[in-house]
Amino acid sequence: MSEHFQGQTLFRTHNAGELRKEQVGQKITLTGWVQRRRDLGGLIFIDLRDRSGYVQAVFEPTHSDAALMALGDKLRTEYVIAVQGTVAARDEKAINNKIATGEIEVKVEAVEILNAAKTSPFFIQDNIEVDENLRLKYRYLDLRRPEMQKIFITRSKTVKYFRDYLDDNGFLEVETPMLTKSTPEGARDYLVPSRVHPGEFYALPQSPQLFKQLLMVSGFERYYQVARCFRDEDLRADRQPEFTQLDIEQSFIPLDKFHEMIEAMMTGLFKKVMDVEIPSPFPRMTYAEAMARYGSDKPDIRFELELKDLSEQVRGCGFKVFNAAVEAGGQVKAIVAPGCASYSRKQIDELEAFAKRYGAKGLAWMALQEEAVKSPIAKFFSEEELQALITTVGATKGDLILFVADSKKVVADSLGSLRSKLGRELNLINESEFKFLWVTEFPLLEHDEESGRYVAAHHPFTMPMVEDLHLLETDPASVRAQAYDLALNGFEIGGGSMRIYNREVQERMFKALGFTLEEAWEQFGFLLEAFEYGTPPHGGIAFGLDRLIMIMEHRQSLRDTIAFPKTSSASDIMTAAPSPVTDFQLETLHIARQGKAIVETNDPVTK
Amino acid sequence: MSEHFQGQTLFRTHNAGELRKEQVGQKITLTGWVQRRRDLGGLIFIDLRDRSGYVQAVFEPTHSDAALMALGDKLRTEYVIAVQGTVAARDEKAINNKIATGEIEVKVEAVEILNAAKTSPFFIQDNIEVDENLRLKYRYLDLRRPEMQKIFITRSKTVKYFRDYLDDNGFLEVETPMLTKSTPEGARDYLVPSRVHPGEFYALPQSPQLFKQLLMVSGFERYYQVARCFRDEDLRADRQPEFTQLDIEQSFIPLDKFHEMIEAMMTGLFKKVMDVEIPSPFPRMTYAEAMARYGSDKPDIRFELELKDLSEQVRGCGFKVFNAAVEAGGQVKAIVAPGCASYSRKQIDELEAFAKRYGAKGLAWMALQEEAVKSPIAKFFSEEELQALITTVGATKGDLILFVADSKKVVADSLGSLRSKLGRELNLINESEFKFLWVTEFPLLEHDEESGRYVAAHHPFTMPMVEDLHLLETDPASVRAQAYDLALNGFEIGGGSMRIYNREVQERMFKALGFTLEEAWEQFGFLLEAFEYGTPPHGGIAFGLDRLIMIMEHRQSLRDTIAFPKTSSASDIMTAAPSPVTDFQLETLHIARQGKAIVETNDPVTK
Repeated sequence: MSEHFQGQTLFRTHNAGELRKEQVGQKITLTGWVQRRRDLGGLIFIDLRDRSGYVQAVFEPTHSDAALMALGDKLRTEYVIAVQGTVAARDEKAINNKIATGEIEVKVEAVEILNAAKTSPFFIQDNIEVDENLRLKYRYLDLRRPEMQKIFITRSKTVKYFRDYLDDNGFLEVETPMLTKSTPEGARDYLVPSRVHPGEFYALPQSPQLFKQLLMVSGFERYYQVARCFRDEDLRADRQPEFTQLDIEQSFIPLDKFHEMIEAMMTGLFKKVMDVEIPSPFPRMTYAEAMARYGSDKPDIRFELELKDLSEQVRGCGFKVFNAAVEAGGQVKAIVAPGCASYSRKQIDELEAFAKRYGAKGLAWMALQEEAVKSPIAKFFSEEELQALITTVGATKGDLILFVADSKKVVADSLGSLRSKLGRELNLINESEFKFLWVTEFPLLEHDEESGRYVAAHHPFTMPMVEDLHLLETDPASVRAQAYDLALNGFEIGGGSMRIYNREVQERMFKALGFTLEEAWEQFGFLLEAFEYGTPPHGGIAFGLDRLIMIMEHRQSLRDTIAFPKTSSASDIMTAAPSPVTDFQLETLHIARQGKAIVETNDPVTK
Repeated sequence: MSEHFQGQTLFRTHNAGELRKEQVGQKITLTGWVQRRRDLGGLIFIDLRDRSGYVQAVFEPTHSDAALMALGDKLRTEYVIAVQGTVAARDEKAINNKIATGEIEVKVEAVEILNAAKTSPFFIQDNIEVDENLRLKYRYLDLRRPEMQKIFITRSKTVKYFRDYLDDNGFLEVETPMLTKSTPEGARDYLVPSRVHPGEFYALPQSPQLFKQLLMVSGFERYYQVARCFRDEDLRADRQPEFTQLDIEQSFIPLDKFHEMIEAMMTGLFKKVMDVEIPSPFPRMTYAEAMARYGSDKPDIRFELELKDLSEQVRGCGFKVFNAAVEAGGQVKAIVAPGCASYSRKQIDELEAFAKRYGAKGLAWMALQEEAVKSPIAKFFSEEELQALITTVGATKGDLILFVADSKKVVADSLGSLRSKLGRELNLINESEFKFLWVTEFPLLEHDEESGRYVAAHHPFTMPMVEDLHLLETDPASVRAQAYDLALNGFEIGGGSMRIYNREVQERMFKALGFTLEEAWEQFGFLLEAFEYGTPPHGGIAFGLDRLIMIMEHRQSLRDTIAFPKTSSASDIMTAAPSPVTDFQLETLHIARQGKAIVETNDPVTK
């Protein structure tokens, strides 16, 4: 049915990147792009690329007629072509062991130019040094580069694996709505004006949380979804306005079985997609322990460099900064930078500036140099005290000890961040390693300084630990939740909890959050009502798919894992979204533009 | 780790609906809902339901202590419980062959009440007669009903099957953005105001069309996605504001191979999920033939009742209504309602009223009664003419012939719709049958009466048939497209086309649509630019998943196939979305409410 294509009569029989010596002598047809063209001794060499890789095709005057050679001569980089020819072994000296198809080439017998191509704004090859905005404007060309294709092949395989695993384990994929109700809790919603209901709005979901819990009320028992979620937040390198979440919820099974199932899913993923063996069970650590040892609730445990608590040891010491911190209920902690005793003053100043970004007022240090301990604070300690400190932190000659004395939070933030920085910069991390860690027993509530009240650390439906329930009214800050995160290499890749399914506990939770029961019903009435009709015990987890792929593919930016991502100002440079719309569109939706910045954006597209 | 649950210490070992005689004697634990409770002769019988079905559990004073009996006595419908007990064979006379677990029962030895339940607003059972609004308000209870669970199990299996099939065929799943650019073509967009770019808006995608074509430009070659799409249109029973599409695009392969692959996918689906054998290849029919024979571009070919063209036969006849229609370039066509010669005048009037809804000015008829032909128009024809008409339409004694004389469009719409109505009402349809049909060679362009210009019948990137290309400027209405629909039982379940990938053809297409090249670039610049960098021949298809599930599950409404659907006013009754939002939210988004209806919607939630 070639009439359905303009001019294409040759259709692919083989993938370019999969040709090997076994195909020598076979007549084949390839379709793809001209990766590059070289002319040599009257011959024309083409690297023909398709999704599978590339292969060399050669136009030879000896067996090609003049018309064919003339067609070959027309070919340019990124032309789309179909090539028919015979697979031949390369001469011994022409074999290229660097590429998978390097032992063979294709002797061209017919060619069709399916489409021409202008010169690309950048090379279609890996490891290019190109401004990211240019890559995003020409995203369709950026995605042609093999390293980018590989990311999306990994992503497709990963999602497929998850679906297979969950399907095998009795989970049903159920789709939940995108046009939902705006709730004031949580991050900022993206809103969608309603045409049918003037003055009313839908919200795009921040997660399918409430719907997946309702599915448990519905008796679906095991649910999953690869769900698009939306948060209108200011963006960082690891945030996107729309992101994808592997969302899982289950009823009736105990937490340890649930965690086992998730571990088996993750180890299976790495085995299947990466061919990497991950030992299981994964290590697990309470939130309290993670914060104490690493200053982070998602520590990278590929390296040690742990935080050492010196608070008791320095209590009453001669250095009043340490002493004051401890007296004020804070902490003094230290980490040991191995082999950094020779750091210059400038290097140490840089570390201090870094620590200050996380709230530290200063960074005390001791360099264990060959001859002596060099330190601006050594004078405040006796020799015995000094040696005792060095022993406690486990430092040896050549090391640099870094101290922060401050509130618990500042100590954790600043030393935890310093730890990560030093881990990277001192090459303490085996980049090919993947280390999972369960972090458990998160606090149920966080005190919000601004409003002076407690807010849910996860969300208001998180189940407290039963042994802490009695503290919910008397000491809410100390109540731990049946909440858990899964960390991988220092990133939180997933988080979840067991949910409250008991009305009495739910009402106590809302009270702890400072809601009246009326307010709670106003906001979450449909869920509270649902809970009265026979809600099973349930819980779940959600994984950030974009971030997981970023880690698996050793990328630095989430943008590399999303086919058509947004910039840090939430724009799509390629399609120019968002964009002005017509007045008529807005009228139909019963809204008007407002605010002073509007006039400037009235560009021709709105006319 | 029972402390993670309030009170749950018994965890499921078996699914209730899967217990059989083979498990007799085994000690098991079940978890689920109380479907019903009966007390009989001092015993308490519970039907315990979970996702797999249900089983009878019995509390017997003979082996249950008083405390257990007291617990059993507390149970009410829809309570959530865990039950431990031993599987026992039922007495011969108690065997219930109507249910899968009817040969056994569970002798209860321990029970935990995991949650209580209020009385449901309707029975949790199949075939209930309940107002749909009540079902939607308590959707989580509606979804508990086994017939609803079955739909979503079918849906999950269907999607899983598609993914497996496409993955096996080398397709990659790639996600495309939800926050995209608004384009004035097509249906009305849902808009999302931007916070970062005042006065600018995203649009929710009506389909991933442009992005999937860009993925072909990117060399992904084979793409699929189960994609949520949005259209802000007035809703009918078979429309939803958000719907799900199985979206497929491929490069380089010929149309017939593509259709073969799609056919194998569909026959495989019905085999796997429904255990139904569908013969292939599917019949195929051009658009022109479908309209001529069935008056529909998505005919239900499970029954015949075809339209017969009498235009030439009645030209110059004595009935001036027929004659005038033919002279005016219209048609006279008829269908034969088998066995309906005895229809009363009232019945025929109803058929006429139905035809008039589709634009017919009247419905002529001839009843071939036993004794004579009864017809108000018989007098205009000679006996020979009458017999010739009867022969042409293939009617026999007892049949009713129905005629429409009008423009081609009105004849097709009215007789096509009458055909469907009669097919259903005369029981001509085997409801257990599934008949696929390819409809091909759709018109490329449609003339829009309102604007007086041509618009794209599918979209502006649809490839014309090569043999019609020369007519694009001289006779655009006659140009056929390389566009195809897949129909199933009278529904369009999918549609697609080969795409234009040649710049010259694309420019001629835009010209035919009345665009200047500047206007085309203003709207679709990024795609046109992409097409210049080496675009492969490509095409694809998209299937409406909700509708496919509706047909597979023999449902009448799309709402039954969507877990949390919207009503015909695009509302979610359960969560009350859309809803008013705070002024602060709107200010942040640089918009204001506008229009007179606003005041009325200022309800307490906005305060």
